Amino acid sequence: MPFDDKLGMDIAYEEAVKGYSEGGIPIGGALIHEDGRILGRGHNLRIQKGSATLHGEIATLEHAGRLPGNVYKNATMYTTLSPCDMCTGACLMYGIKRVVLGENNNFVGGEEQLKSRGVEVINMSDKRCEELMAKFIKEKPQEWFEDIGE
Amino acid sequence: MPFDDKLGMDIAYEEAVKGYSEGGIPIGGALIHEDGRILGRGHNLRIQKGSATLHGEIATLEHAGRLPGNVYKNATMYTTLSPCDMCTGACLMYGIKRVVLGENNNFVGGEEQLKSRGVEVINMSDKRCEELMAKFIKEKPQEWFEDIGE
Repeated sequence: MPFDDKLGMDIAYEEAVKGYSEGGIPIGGALIHEDGRILGRGHNLRIQKGSATLHGEIATLEHAGRLPGNVYKNATMYTTLSPCDMCTGACLMYGIKRVVLGENNNFVGGEEQLKSRGVEVINMSDKRCEELMAKFIKEKPQEWFEDIGE
Repeated sequence: MPFDDKLGMDIAYEEAVKGYSEGGIPIGGALIHEDGRILGRGHNLRIQKGSATLHGEIATLEHAGRLPGNVYKNATMYTTLSPCDMCTGACLMYGIKRVVLGENNNFVGGEEQLKSRGVEVINMSDKRCEELMAKFIKEKPQEWFEDIGE
């Protein structure tokens, strides 16, 4: 039985909530192998670490650490928000098999590029993810725009 | 007078040499504003830090730290090697104006994607960069393939 995407998104959402509780940008991720192993999990650390690159997905890949290339080919990246160009590119570089996103109402990233390169993309339209992100954007718009280079 | 690309590549190459001397993958970068300010510089830290995401360009952006979005729009990313999908995406996400690469004989990354999105791309065909990278790939092929997810 394949890993339940709902459980993967629960972990990514937990990470987003953790980020929010730290005063950070509430975007979380989880990298899960199709055999069920949680390879990594993480959340955006721009504010907490003064980081320009630790988006939710990058922090997740970083937490997973150095892995053989074939591990990524059978893994899913869960992310609470549609992935930006950088995180899209990271998934493509590693050949991640599937990208499951919480929502794309607050931001639309590289979903079409992922699909065009053969990555399965699923949007879970998760209201929790959407509401948390919308709340943050309303509270700290400048931090959000900085995070996507605007 | 615009910033001299040769000087930018000298800094990126210095970083690559530093990485090699640390036992790491010799790819370096520099982010330089068109007014001449060196915003950041760095090199691949996969081996040194056990990092899955600190490629030369990502380390450079990380070293530059949190910057207002408009700074990137007038900056050039120098990198000793054609940028992978992740680093290409990072440049696109931040709207970096120009990407100057040392060489693309050892690896061809997202140059066409950068151009299609309006980024100026220049290949300096720098023999120093090419020779250093070729030497590393011959010495430690496994580390190199791991770095690009293969």
